[in-house]
Amino acid sequence: MTRIVVAGPRGKMGYEAVQLCIKEQDLTLVAVVDSKHDGMRLSDFPEFSDVDVPIYTEMDRCFSEQNVDVLVDLTTPAFGKKHMEIAFLHGVRPVVGTTGFSDQDISDLTRLAEEKQLGAIIAPNFAIGAILMMKFSQLAARYMPDVEIIEQHHDQKLDAPSGTALKTAQLIAQERQPKHQGHEQEVEERAGARGADYEGMRIHSVRLPGRVAHQEVLFGGEGQTLSIKHDSLNRKSFMPGVKLAIDQVLKLETLVYGLENLID
Amino acid sequence: MTRIVVAGPRGKMGYEAVQLCIKEQDLTLVAVVDSKHDGMRLSDFPEFSDVDVPIYTEMDRCFSEQNVDVLVDLTTPAFGKKHMEIAFLHGVRPVVGTTGFSDQDISDLTRLAEEKQLGAIIAPNFAIGAILMMKFSQLAARYMPDVEIIEQHHDQKLDAPSGTALKTAQLIAQERQPKHQGHEQEVEERAGARGADYEGMRIHSVRLPGRVAHQEVLFGGEGQTLSIKHDSLNRKSFMPGVKLAIDQVLKLETLVYGLENLID
Amino acid sequence: MTRIVVAGPRGKMGYEAVQLCIKEQDLTLVAVVDSKHDGMRLSDFPEFSDVDVPIYTEMDRCFSEQNVDVLVDLTTPAFGKKHMEIAFLHGVRPVVGTTGFSDQDISDLTRLAEEKQLGAIIAPNFAIGAILMMKFSQLAARYMPDVEIIEQHHDQKLDAPSGTALKTAQLIAQERQPKHQGHEQEVEERAGARGADYEGMRIHSVRLPGRVAHQEVLFGGEGQTLSIKHDSLNRKSFMPGVKLAIDQVLKLETLVYGLENLID
Amino acid sequence: MTRIVVAGPRGKMGYEAVQLCIKEQDLTLVAVVDSKHDGMRLSDFPEFSDVDVPIYTEMDRCFSEQNVDVLVDLTTPAFGKKHMEIAFLHGVRPVVGTTGFSDQDISDLTRLAEEKQLGAIIAPNFAIGAILMMKFSQLAARYMPDVEIIEQHHDQKLDAPSGTALKTAQLIAQERQPKHQGHEQEVEERAGARGADYEGMRIHSVRLPGRVAHQEVLFGGEGQTLSIKHDSLNRKSFMPGVKLAIDQVLKLETLVYGLENLID
Repeated sequence: MTRIVVAGPRGKMGYEAVQLCIKEQDLTLVAVVDSKHDGMRLSDFPEFSDVDVPIYTEMDRCFSEQNVDVLVDLTTPAFGKKHMEIAFLHGVRPVVGTTGFSDQDISDLTRLAEEKQLGAIIAPNFAIGAILMMKFSQLAARYMPDVEIIEQHHDQKLDAPSGTALKTAQLIAQERQPKHQGHEQEVEERAGARGADYEGMRIHSVRLPGRVAHQEVLFGGEGQTLSIKHDSLNRKSFMPGVKLAIDQVLKLETLVYGLENLID
Repeated sequence: MTRIVVAGPRGKMGYEAVQLCIKEQDLTLVAVVDSKHDGMRLSDFPEFSDVDVPIYTEMDRCFSEQNVDVLVDLTTPAFGKKHMEIAFLHGVRPVVGTTGFSDQDISDLTRLAEEKQLGAIIAPNFAIGAILMMKFSQLAARYMPDVEIIEQHHDQKLDAPSGTALKTAQLIAQERQPKHQGHEQEVEERAGARGADYEGMRIHSVRLPGRVAHQEVLFGGEGQTLSIKHDSLNRKSFMPGVKLAIDQVLKLETLVYGLENLID
Repeated sequence: MTRIVVAGPRGKMGYEAVQLCIKEQDLTLVAVVDSKHDGMRLSDFPEFSDVDVPIYTEMDRCFSEQNVDVLVDLTTPAFGKKHMEIAFLHGVRPVVGTTGFSDQDISDLTRLAEEKQLGAIIAPNFAIGAILMMKFSQLAARYMPDVEIIEQHHDQKLDAPSGTALKTAQLIAQERQPKHQGHEQEVEERAGARGADYEGMRIHSVRLPGRVAHQEVLFGGEGQTLSIKHDSLNRKSFMPGVKLAIDQVLKLETLVYGLENLID
Repeated sequence: MTRIVVAGPRGKMGYEAVQLCIKEQDLTLVAVVDSKHDGMRLSDFPEFSDVDVPIYTEMDRCFSEQNVDVLVDLTTPAFGKKHMEIAFLHGVRPVVGTTGFSDQDISDLTRLAEEKQLGAIIAPNFAIGAILMMKFSQLAARYMPDVEIIEQHHDQKLDAPSGTALKTAQLIAQERQPKHQGHEQEVEERAGARGADYEGMRIHSVRLPGRVAHQEVLFGGEGQTLSIKHDSLNRKSFMPGVKLAIDQVLKLETLVYGLENLID
């Protein structure tokens, strides 16, 4: 049985993390850390009426009073590093879902983890399906270097292409020579038809009501195509990644950055 | 049994039209019209070794000597109008698969057809699946006006967007008010990501080896999407449209332009 | 401005119908009919705090006291017929989203509507995308009679195939001769591989977590395929169909059964 | 420059392999081995008019007279083992595209390859896209164990499910616990709707004119789906896999069975 503390239980991700601890039989939630409500019980809040664990505002005191294996930190980037340092001090292994760590932070925290021989995981993206899509795309590009990315989102999204599309293109670019795709004399009779360019790869952003968050990475070769597609509907999709991180952090004695590095 | 003459049997489309006449039990090929080889038999050519019909270079003489119901004309735009006029003179109903008719041509030929009470069909596109895709898209846009078009072709194609994509967008534009799609403050962080604009609709052109000719028309509404997609692999896809035109031209007493006007 | 009464406002569909009336500028909600809470205001309920209209338990009194153009009835089948009769009595045009009407009911209600020269619509399915998918599929089958249906739902669904898949197959069957599809000597090496049979059409039911409600109708012909696909994510997808029905019922002087009969 | 002999040049795969040697600048075809036409030149055949290399019927003599690096063997299973033994004798590295090797054969040939310190590759499937699809599917199943396979082929295919679908299911089964998918009380109202069962996974086989060879492996998790899809249009799709095997066999000093074991 792994004893968990969730930091940030009232956020959307935090809510799902609490539900995960209830649902999974080998996890038990022992307390939560919140920015307020010290001394109250989580069950005092209607959406958690069946989760009777104490709320702490001070992480340090929480770890002193409770016996904890893993901290699941879903707060904001501002607190990530400090929370990890406190966790290490108490022998607690942190799983952190925030971004904003500098290279120096990562290097400092890795040294700390290794000194203490404690596992630690920082994962900017817990959606295991998206992680697999990116990892497979990177691998496929070695053998099928002609690639286009089609991402689809709801029409309230402000940026195009999506961050995931750019991250995918960047990962693929590491595996192939820059390559002009399409016919050399290709003519765009209407500007933008061939999408955005990223080292010769083309990225197309569709925005429509009724879509949520979808991405297809399409590889073409003589006589064949390979497509890798991820559809994400809601934040529940992050939970299997959180579970994977909890399971793996117990076996590690260093810090791992990015869920993709847990998958082989 | 419908008696057919095919004009242009040695072209790719013409070849398939000859095969259609052999395959369909209610059609019989009585002769072909070609720009050369007058007096030879079609079976003198290896690819037609089992099709023993006469070759004429003069359409007029062909119709004088043979009893013909329908002319299937797959020659070039230069001859379309003249061939139709000759056909009408002999009471033969023309099915013409070429483009390049002016509005005046259509109007003259319609008058001729109605004077003679003869059916006639001009079809720039015989691919019935593509025709259905365009027709359905036009209808769907009345009820779901948010639309994006994603077309995919082999990477040797020179133009983007494809002619079919532009034709589809034009047909849809007839059915909806011009409409800016996407968020008002949407930002293209890489130029072209959101595709080409056609009255607010977005068109995305994918070019990859391994693709042939594909188009998806995607409609979004609150909580739902509707997708209409056509894949075309080869010219055999045109034959059901030719068969439909032959069947329908026998029932008509006027000229119909565009296969979509035969479908209801 | 069209004045609306919604019956059944506390159901999921009813909730969305109330939101529709608030969102659409040419609609105004004048009252709701509920099975209880007579004399209260809808704004007494937190989820409707900004919708200050009276609640009636008696539809008859509601129509006597209020000036109403259209009744949107989203209650249960048991009340559909009675509610329509009351509406007709008061010159109100009903839009009814329930099933369970017998042929005799339909015939009686049509006669009533025509006597009163009032429009009325009964729509077992308001999802306009699904209606279009079925209508287009029926039409496509005339020209491309080889069809398979692939429907995908969440893995908590009990029945396979889905009701929509069976309805679609039935509509297609009206348009084509029963037809054995696939090779005559085809062998299912594992039972069920080729799906369920419906007059020669094959239906495949996929059940996976992460899916909601999806259906693809796939037509194959020599060298081409045509695919018509609908994805439904939530009940908001029904609202454009409700709006269409409200707009059309004002122009009708008879009863129309099925939204597909409003689309041409 | 790698010197190649192709065995079986008049088969469909062999034809493409010859074309590959002409197209790729670092490959040169030095001779072909055929079951007949000894002493003729390949250019004596119209489809190879520009490929002037000798034809041998005896592989042994071919390797004695020519300086050869790699044998590409696309003949029939009956000859695979014998051809490999002859190749090893002459220090030629074999790339073999046939099936039908017993475990004993593989073990014998591996010992031979290692004694001679020669690379050798046996690949029952050279379609790199299909290999990647299977490899990725196997890996994804560890993290997303709910899987269904949808394969689509032309309607002249005799067997269902396809060999590739069964192979994929088998590979996935190695990575997950057998698992009943779908609701426990699920009811198939028409037999076969839920497809064929393979250790709880469901396989659906679509057969339609206009399709060639396609497979989608679909993984579902809470709030997300991941899809891996391969489309194969023609035998040209095998050539990148043959090229990969030629490149890799030069670096090996043992036998590798299955192209998937060259990909990491």
